[in-house]
Amino acid sequence: MTSTTSGTRPALNGVDTPTLFATLDAVKASPDLAKFQFRATNRWISGTNNRSTIRGFYGAGQEDTSRTEDFTYDADHPAVLVGTGKGPTPVEFLLHAIAACLTAGLANVAAARGVALTEVSSTVEGDIDLLGILGLDHDVRNGYQGIRVSFRIRGDAPDEVLRGLVERSRARSAVYDVLTNGVPVSIDVTTG
Amino acid sequence: MTSTTSGTRPALNGVDTPTLFATLDAVKASPDLAKFQFRATNRWISGTNNRSTIRGFYGAGQEDTSRTEDFTYDADHPAVLVGTGKGPTPVEFLLHAIAACLTAGLANVAAARGVALTEVSSTVEGDIDLLGILGLDHDVRNGYQGIRVSFRIRGDAPDEVLRGLVERSRARSAVYDVLTNGVPVSIDVTTG
Repeated sequence: MTSTTSGTRPALNGVDTPTLFATLDAVKASPDLAKFQFRATNRWISGTNNRSTIRGFYGAGQEDTSRTEDFTYDADHPAVLVGTGKGPTPVEFLLHAIAACLTAGLANVAAARGVALTEVSSTVEGDIDLLGILGLDHDVRNGYQGIRVSFRIRGDAPDEVLRGLVERSRARSAVYDVLTNGVPVSIDVTTG
Repeated sequence: MTSTTSGTRPALNGVDTPTLFATLDAVKASPDLAKFQFRATNRWISGTNNRSTIRGFYGAGQEDTSRTEDFTYDADHPAVLVGTGKGPTPVEFLLHAIAACLTAGLANVAAARGVALTEVSSTVEGDIDLLGILGLDHDVRNGYQGIRVSFRIRGDAPDEVLRGLVERSRARSAVYDVLTNGVPVSIDVTTG
């Protein structure tokens, strides 16, 4: 998924590589197509259980209509944190997000480079000391202290080429950027 | 959910407030109970579609056994980004995570302060310019340029008290901390 790779690659890894390169060319010609806005809505259910709905987004110059159903996800705290365990904790969704972003990018990069993948799996671990969010130690941050991603990759290319796919995916990952560099988050409230 | 609030509050908002305060006392007495590790595993399916599984975690001094089934989540890119739309994009899960974390915290804080909530809903928007991840403009970051969370809250307390719940939840939110301040992410790769 680079702007300098030839556009003559065939579809590979389930990636429609010709369309991917055509999309890159279209965005090069009309950079405003690259402006996207993603959205989620959330509703509190009870206690620490709440539910998000994801569907619409704006991008490529228009409101997307390709999604015909809502994606809905519960989150909750587990019993040991006085929740009801009806979904993962919010912080676990961050681990899903980083694995998913790196893996999607990796498949695109592999297709662009002509590497056929046979397996990509990963485990993600995040360490967190809850003394922060519990308000018991102000020197402990609220969030993860560190996240580790471990990939296992197999494909028809030498070790260093496979490693290069991960490195390029990391360098172009939206979630990796947000998690490692942070992003401004504004919060507003309407009551009554 | 503060360490200075009285522990005599009754259960409220679906929050078992007495157990919440008892948990705080237990962690105060044994701070190592606050060390948690959350995890996700991910497997590539095809193209930009992949699937994470979330279940086990370590915390409160032991491996958790309360979850009797896996939570599984697909992610994908939408058609306009040359994906198959079998799940939200990875970056949309970040929006779910921040809404879920702030909302869970808010319910806990409200219970601790004796505020009965009747509605908490939120919308989250994230703006992203894909010129970054497409490699078309190196001055554009890969991730969101900004995230906006808009809450609507109703409960049996004055406006300023309801707003104070959000502010306290923000100040103690693990996801807000990670998204605004960033976290070290390490990646390792095994091939073959």
